[in-house]
Amino acid sequence: MTGYALPIKRLIKELGKFPGIGEKTATRLATFILRASEEEARKLAECILDVKQKIRLCSVCFNLTEDNLCDICADTSREKEVICVVEEPDSLIAIEESGSFRGTYHVLHGSLSPLDGVGPEHLRIQEFLSRIANNRIKEIIIATNPDVQGEATALLISKSVRGLDVNVTRIALGVPVGGNLKYMDKMTLKKSLEFRRGI
Amino acid sequence: MTGYALPIKRLIKELGKFPGIGEKTATRLATFILRASEEEARKLAECILDVKQKIRLCSVCFNLTEDNLCDICADTSREKEVICVVEEPDSLIAIEESGSFRGTYHVLHGSLSPLDGVGPEHLRIQEFLSRIANNRIKEIIIATNPDVQGEATALLISKSVRGLDVNVTRIALGVPVGGNLKYMDKMTLKKSLEFRRGI
Repeated sequence: MTGYALPIKRLIKELGKFPGIGEKTATRLATFILRASEEEARKLAECILDVKQKIRLCSVCFNLTEDNLCDICADTSREKEVICVVEEPDSLIAIEESGSFRGTYHVLHGSLSPLDGVGPEHLRIQEFLSRIANNRIKEIIIATNPDVQGEATALLISKSVRGLDVNVTRIALGVPVGGNLKYMDKMTLKKSLEFRRGI
Repeated sequence: MTGYALPIKRLIKELGKFPGIGEKTATRLATFILRASEEEARKLAECILDVKQKIRLCSVCFNLTEDNLCDICADTSREKEVICVVEEPDSLIAIEESGSFRGTYHVLHGSLSPLDGVGPEHLRIQEFLSRIANNRIKEIIIATNPDVQGEATALLISKSVRGLDVNVTRIALGVPVGGNLKYMDKMTLKKSLEFRRGI
């Protein structure tokens, strides 16, 4: 059986390592690269190398950055006394895009997941604790994801800072804007009641 | 609004150029690259460059190859007097994987599509005609896709070789193996009747 030439097979194999990309899609992507100009392919390859070489973690909040400090930590107009704790940089981006937060962040780079062997030591929790020990922090907003791992992580963090003179809050779990109550699952409705507030 | 650091944004933009990959998926792929080892990222970038540098078209059939001749054209055991005409290399791969063809191929690299500005001059038809003029060919099997463009291309090729001493055939259009007649569209059933043969 004859297949694609070796370099194409190798590219398909590499592209197939992406999450959610099977062999068929990988083949389609490889075909696109084959048809793209040399210039386009070079640019893509450069971007891949660039991102690995240039991106590191902010020394304060562990957000992705090109510098020692990320844009948010370097921004003097942000409220340094409020820290929003998120699991991943993409949560941070989502909150930033909502435009509704002027404090700073702490990126844990994961959530507790004992079954996958992810314990507290794999998250940036130690760094978080020394950060709040060494700075005057007014509020910690825990914005981990509303799933089992995220909730466990939220609990761990709230326990870790117990006794410190800091206000610890959790982002509200409830019905999303535009949603319809009749389609909501029980847990979401339960949470939306728990998180209710006066109007 | 603060977003990802510039190298990440650039990578997302480049990945978003792939067909069927929107910004969300591109972001997911970029995140994967960020988390991959430097070694993994380097390998992917190399494969992309490699494929552009090493892959060219077979001088006979225009299949993708690393050499002057593709594996199939270089294989002396293949029947050189039978040419299967396909639109794209992936059709060739599909037929090869079926293991039911021992002749050679001609890859057109496209199909007639006047609305997209693709005319006969954009396909490898001229090269095909000189190939059959300069070699003893017994049969031409037209295996373009069974859609409007593929049929138009099949018609053009059959007209181009009219008058030559060569048997021109079209792969059968009909109900696929494992299919159920009640779910077949009218055109497929019509074709399956047209292409019927004695048993």
